[in-house]
Amino acid sequence: MRSRTIGLLGLGTVGQALVSIIQEVHPDLHVAKALVRDVNRHRTIDIPMTTRPEEILFDPEIDLVVEVTGGRELPRQWITQALAANKDVVTANKEVMAYYGSELLAAARQSGRQLRYEAAVAGGVPILDALTHHLSVVPLRRIDGVLNGTCNFILSQMEHGASYTEALAEAQRLGYAEADPTADVGGDDTARKVLLLAQLGFHLEAAIESVDTVGITGVTAHHLARLETFHLGLRLVGSAIWDKDSLSLRVAPTVYRVPHPFLDLEGPDNAIRVVSQAGAFWFQGPGAGGYATATSVISDIFRIRTHNGSLNPPPPGHYPIRQATSRYVCFTHDPDQSLPLGLPGELQRLGSYAIVAPGFSQEALDEYGLCQFLWGEET
Amino acid sequence: MRSRTIGLLGLGTVGQALVSIIQEVHPDLHVAKALVRDVNRHRTIDIPMTTRPEEILFDPEIDLVVEVTGGRELPRQWITQALAANKDVVTANKEVMAYYGSELLAAARQSGRQLRYEAAVAGGVPILDALTHHLSVVPLRRIDGVLNGTCNFILSQMEHGASYTEALAEAQRLGYAEADPTADVGGDDTARKVLLLAQLGFHLEAAIESVDTVGITGVTAHHLARLETFHLGLRLVGSAIWDKDSLSLRVAPTVYRVPHPFLDLEGPDNAIRVVSQAGAFWFQGPGAGGYATATSVISDIFRIRTHNGSLNPPPPGHYPIRQATSRYVCFTHDPDQSLPLGLPGELQRLGSYAIVAPGFSQEALDEYGLCQFLWGEET
Repeated sequence: MRSRTIGLLGLGTVGQALVSIIQEVHPDLHVAKALVRDVNRHRTIDIPMTTRPEEILFDPEIDLVVEVTGGRELPRQWITQALAANKDVVTANKEVMAYYGSELLAAARQSGRQLRYEAAVAGGVPILDALTHHLSVVPLRRIDGVLNGTCNFILSQMEHGASYTEALAEAQRLGYAEADPTADVGGDDTARKVLLLAQLGFHLEAAIESVDTVGITGVTAHHLARLETFHLGLRLVGSAIWDKDSLSLRVAPTVYRVPHPFLDLEGPDNAIRVVSQAGAFWFQGPGAGGYATATSVISDIFRIRTHNGSLNPPPPGHYPIRQATSRYVCFTHDPDQSLPLGLPGELQRLGSYAIVAPGFSQEALDEYGLCQFLWGEET
Repeated sequence: MRSRTIGLLGLGTVGQALVSIIQEVHPDLHVAKALVRDVNRHRTIDIPMTTRPEEILFDPEIDLVVEVTGGRELPRQWITQALAANKDVVTANKEVMAYYGSELLAAARQSGRQLRYEAAVAGGVPILDALTHHLSVVPLRRIDGVLNGTCNFILSQMEHGASYTEALAEAQRLGYAEADPTADVGGDDTARKVLLLAQLGFHLEAAIESVDTVGITGVTAHHLARLETFHLGLRLVGSAIWDKDSLSLRVAPTVYRVPHPFLDLEGPDNAIRVVSQAGAFWFQGPGAGGYATATSVISDIFRIRTHNGSLNPPPPGHYPIRQATSRYVCFTHDPDQSLPLGLPGELQRLGSYAIVAPGFSQEALDEYGLCQFLWGEET
């Protein structure tokens, strides 16, 4: 196992944590240089910096590139260039892997290098390698994950009585939510992560557009209070569900009976459940934070060092992706109104909410003045 | 990745599940022969069998040996012979790894072969590889695990009112407990697993004798009922706790406040919590069963195939192992008697139980008519 010289693209929270862990406990790794936007900005760590990516991508001394910038098009270009320049690559970037993963993994296979991205899903939780090389050695039935800490925080604040607007503002004040929180609360961040999980767990290729995505922007404190009276709770859940010979991919506010491990998540922790013929496996841990995310990055660096070049999974098969066919839990939009009488047979009454059979359209829900949540189908 | 020809030592529940998974979904693996005690016993699967281990250990066609027999001395001998004969080895045997792991891993390093044992701890849960190659890339603080399904079953039966004797008999009737349940209920099985976790997580070598082990044989239904009145519950927990510059290893009936994920375990599921500077990570899943255990074995086979020969961790450092210094939760032995008056200052009263300071001896407890449980120190 030879030592590794690392070029770092990005020196934000994760990049700085990475450098400090390496300097403290891994003297066999060496961060040679970091790409930054502004070399004069104050940082607690001291390493050579550059604003020119080519000084890292084409430095022959650097044999491994770590990308922790975020974004989509520039990282795609950098990762492609690094692989072509015969460097292994580790990225923490779920967005670039969800949009261009197939292309980038093919480039890695072609160049005989490795591309790993453990940190891209659930931060510090060791789920991607376990899914690829352990859990999926027997066929999987489903993967469900609570994968966005910002949504956990907002929902738990709303459970304690805050409005959606108040909860979002508090999340932004504390730095849990971005100035533009669209990707978090709209479900796109979770969709990217569940796509990456599904591709590795079910050995398939799928486009991000095939994930049926509903965020939490329509959830109100009133909905959560209504759920609570039925001993139900709600989290934003990404799911990949195998049924007979096709897979459905979806992100939706999902309802579970209390107690449920997903409902305990109130902040940055993520949780994932993987069900196979061998049983149900649970994983939980910090899904964000510099130190946790950097742990996954370092794990990838070591795994690259101890693996043969052939680690990247072979090109996956193609499975049909079908639309989600879950039942819906419905509530009236008007907090003071109980469910309308004369509901059609597809609606099954249960207290003052209703479960809708698969295929019941949003138009039909609207007609009855209902909003919807996906029901968590426990196996 | 070349195909692998496997020799199987043992064709019980795990061995048969392994063969059927391989035959169903992994045509690139081939089980050439299995060692059995009796070739005439009825089995659902059809592969060549032998009663002579040397027909597997010295067969030049076989390049990987899987040991799923159980026991200690014979497996030690077989694994040593297989490694010397230039074969990689996968074992599910916690006992042989807890007693002879250092010796066997050294033999693997010397012969340039790999020895892996993911299935030896927590059955199908992918914890050993994650601990070795991911979680422990930053220094760990502690590992706690509920690692014995038989004890979970007995304790949950007792929580529902059964006596210890009744619960044990029921576990034996259902096949959850062996005819001789000593290793399960006495804590030795958990001690072996926590030793293996600690060695990988803390990069140390330790003898099984250094695990301070108390089983559940002293726990009564009355104790559990008393705990319940304080919203406490109890499971048999194995712990490895780092404190300043030494490690304590212990197994003990451990008390947690309800709700706690460990207290939900009522059967074969195992759960492990790993705490590092990066946060707390939870793992849960089936800790026993042929299919789950075989999943871990197959994962090891694939990992051997994709790893360089240098996978085995380097010889570990030596850390001081200290005695456990936990506080104790005490109950009077006599169910009708409240705690005696005039307890010494080291005993802190809390309702009708007491927390004893570290170092309070069993003799002193006996003097006051108390029994003890270790208190789960939440971090």
